[in-house]
Amino acid sequence: MIESRVMNSAVVAVGNELLIGKTVDTNGSWLSEKLTDLGVPVAGRWVTGDHPGSIQDCIKDALEKADIVIVTGGLGPTSDDLTRPAVADLFHRKLIEDPALVQGLYDRFSTMGYNSLPQRNLVQAKVPEGAIVIDNKEGTAPGLIIEDAGRVVILLPGVPREMKMIFDLEVKEYINSQFRSHLIPTLERTFNTSGIPESLLAEEMAGHTDKFPPDVSLAFLPGLQGVSLRITTPDTDGKGLVRLGLCEEVLMPVIAPHFYSMGATDIVDTLASLLLSAKKNLAVGESCTGGLISKRITDRPGSSRYFRGGIIAYDIETKSSVLGIDKQIIATKGVVSQEVASLLAERSTRLMNADFGIGITGVAGPGGGSSDVPVGKVCYAVFGDGRVHTFQKVFGGNRQAVRTRAAQAALFSFFQMLTNKLD
Amino acid sequence: MIESRVMNSAVVAVGNELLIGKTVDTNGSWLSEKLTDLGVPVAGRWVTGDHPGSIQDCIKDALEKADIVIVTGGLGPTSDDLTRPAVADLFHRKLIEDPALVQGLYDRFSTMGYNSLPQRNLVQAKVPEGAIVIDNKEGTAPGLIIEDAGRVVILLPGVPREMKMIFDLEVKEYINSQFRSHLIPTLERTFNTSGIPESLLAEEMAGHTDKFPPDVSLAFLPGLQGVSLRITTPDTDGKGLVRLGLCEEVLMPVIAPHFYSMGATDIVDTLASLLLSAKKNLAVGESCTGGLISKRITDRPGSSRYFRGGIIAYDIETKSSVLGIDKQIIATKGVVSQEVASLLAERSTRLMNADFGIGITGVAGPGGGSSDVPVGKVCYAVFGDGRVHTFQKVFGGNRQAVRTRAAQAALFSFFQMLTNKLD
Repeated sequence: MIESRVMNSAVVAVGNELLIGKTVDTNGSWLSEKLTDLGVPVAGRWVTGDHPGSIQDCIKDALEKADIVIVTGGLGPTSDDLTRPAVADLFHRKLIEDPALVQGLYDRFSTMGYNSLPQRNLVQAKVPEGAIVIDNKEGTAPGLIIEDAGRVVILLPGVPREMKMIFDLEVKEYINSQFRSHLIPTLERTFNTSGIPESLLAEEMAGHTDKFPPDVSLAFLPGLQGVSLRITTPDTDGKGLVRLGLCEEVLMPVIAPHFYSMGATDIVDTLASLLLSAKKNLAVGESCTGGLISKRITDRPGSSRYFRGGIIAYDIETKSSVLGIDKQIIATKGVVSQEVASLLAERSTRLMNADFGIGITGVAGPGGGSSDVPVGKVCYAVFGDGRVHTFQKVFGGNRQAVRTRAAQAALFSFFQMLTNKLD
Repeated sequence: MIESRVMNSAVVAVGNELLIGKTVDTNGSWLSEKLTDLGVPVAGRWVTGDHPGSIQDCIKDALEKADIVIVTGGLGPTSDDLTRPAVADLFHRKLIEDPALVQGLYDRFSTMGYNSLPQRNLVQAKVPEGAIVIDNKEGTAPGLIIEDAGRVVILLPGVPREMKMIFDLEVKEYINSQFRSHLIPTLERTFNTSGIPESLLAEEMAGHTDKFPPDVSLAFLPGLQGVSLRITTPDTDGKGLVRLGLCEEVLMPVIAPHFYSMGATDIVDTLASLLLSAKKNLAVGESCTGGLISKRITDRPGSSRYFRGGIIAYDIETKSSVLGIDKQIIATKGVVSQEVASLLAERSTRLMNADFGIGITGVAGPGGGSSDVPVGKVCYAVFGDGRVHTFQKVFGGNRQAVRTRAAQAALFSFFQMLTNKLD
């Protein structure tokens, strides 16, 4: 019996491709986030190769720190898939062929149009004696739960899609029902901001966080698309949501000028809602971002309802021939100028008969800079209702960073225009 | 003294953000790949939180399996950065302030325009007694090498840019010079293909791999941009390159129709070389990929020398108003048709006065499909020298997968046109 205390979890990721660094262990982080949300904090993670002794060592070490150990990977049908026998051996259990799993394999291959079952796959029907078998709707390796002396080891396939489906459909419910009284779910709320560096945002927040109730922690999460603030609280007393609400009241007035959305929302999602509800559409004229803004907008399904299209006027000839921007203006003001940004926005809007437009021009680097126009200098503009707002900034970082930051800045200014926050 | 035998390494990644799954441990895989290339196989990886006891446990466990342990993270200036004191304590060493590091911190902050040094940063000048200090040109946390009883623990910052720079500039050389006789570098060669599924490529390769010399292994690495084949061999006898050369002779004739580049090269790099040497340039007309092709081309510095620009004709109005594509053709042939793809390529080329053009139209999904035009159906065309080649495929996967695969397929066909492999 497990006492009424907080339980811990651990994750072991198995696979030679992980150890030689050719595959990034995204399963480990995915499981960590899910387990944390469920209220089973992760005490540690292990990454090991396809070697029975190493797999056993990791599970033993993990069981010293955790009550629930999830092992992902090494359940396939080939000779380098060794998790199943390693775990059976570790717990001194026989591997027994499960008739229902055998039947499932025959059915699966027959549905796929094969006349026979590859004999290799039969090992996937062998389970450690006494293990709980969890069906895998997406593949041939079932999930397996081994309960041993109050501890639990859960084996999941390494294919991310299969692992995620088994976890979401079955493992979550198993952990919830077996250990409910030990779980302390963490509640969280995330506020996304743009256009202000982490240090300045921290300064603006200082002097306000002392108004937060106890048991709430605040994290600053900086990225190329802005800084997110995450507040978290363990929901020990059922009042977690109230605490988060109190924090939000303190926080929002401070961050309002930089805030655009909550949670795992991209700014293009926020813009989509605004454009759809206003029944308006958008066009873009991109130079230095070279298609990135259009790509980000169209990453979202259904974007054809509010996105007319884009002109990637990457060289001066194209700016002139497609958008009719006067070469004289480019020569006198410079191709990286607020004037050209403004024309990119306005002419694209008119050419595509759109309601709004974004224009952007700059030096993404690493070459092409000068003392007047350094690498990272970007001018951008938003246009609509006959009005234009232009901006000029210098972004840091490499080419990819400059482009990502510049695209986000332009989208944020467009967000401000749509929400009437410009002048 | 370490005997003349193979050495192992291990990696410990430190940070609460890793354990709650909000940050993916990319440092671990990056270091694993570098260490493997260097000839120090990685025996295991650990991920732990910002807690001194856990950090120490992981390093102890790692030292049982490895001669060189790299710890990344927890070297920052704040109260939750605990790697430095945890390691000093583990090896019973005092933390001593390094005057040169203190001076470096003052200089750094003064260059950044600050009048004083935040006192918090001073902890970053404290090093475990006897440690080798490695300068960090990108940040305030130096790298630290602690040698102890023939084993080595190397502390690196968690910020990927800083960690990579310190590893590449200093750690690599340190390992090479200290342990040269124990290193068995793995040699590898990677062949990138496009347009053929993994299983078919494996079938085409079957019957050829038995001509490979021993000690060479072949891996199929499928991704959304195609399948790469990697051959690797341990260079124990100095004849590794010869073995790889023999494999290449066997492999190349088989994969030639699908091959476009070797190593870590994006197809846009290959296209850049071809266009630059031919002194030709390119324009694109994108519908379903919505800017992705233009973005990929302009991800590469210097692309303005061969990329005219793109027309993101995302809706029908734009196809008609900007590119003059007859709405009648769209109505009769369908917006997803080889005719429209062909017109997107040709009209974009002419409008931007380019030498070559790519056109693409399709249904990226998840909505918008029909029985005639299912989700994933994409038509694309390449145009140049007055000739056009059109293609039609159905790509699987979600919206992002369809768009990525479609963009790659179009770029691959353009590669085939430039290398005279079409018709």
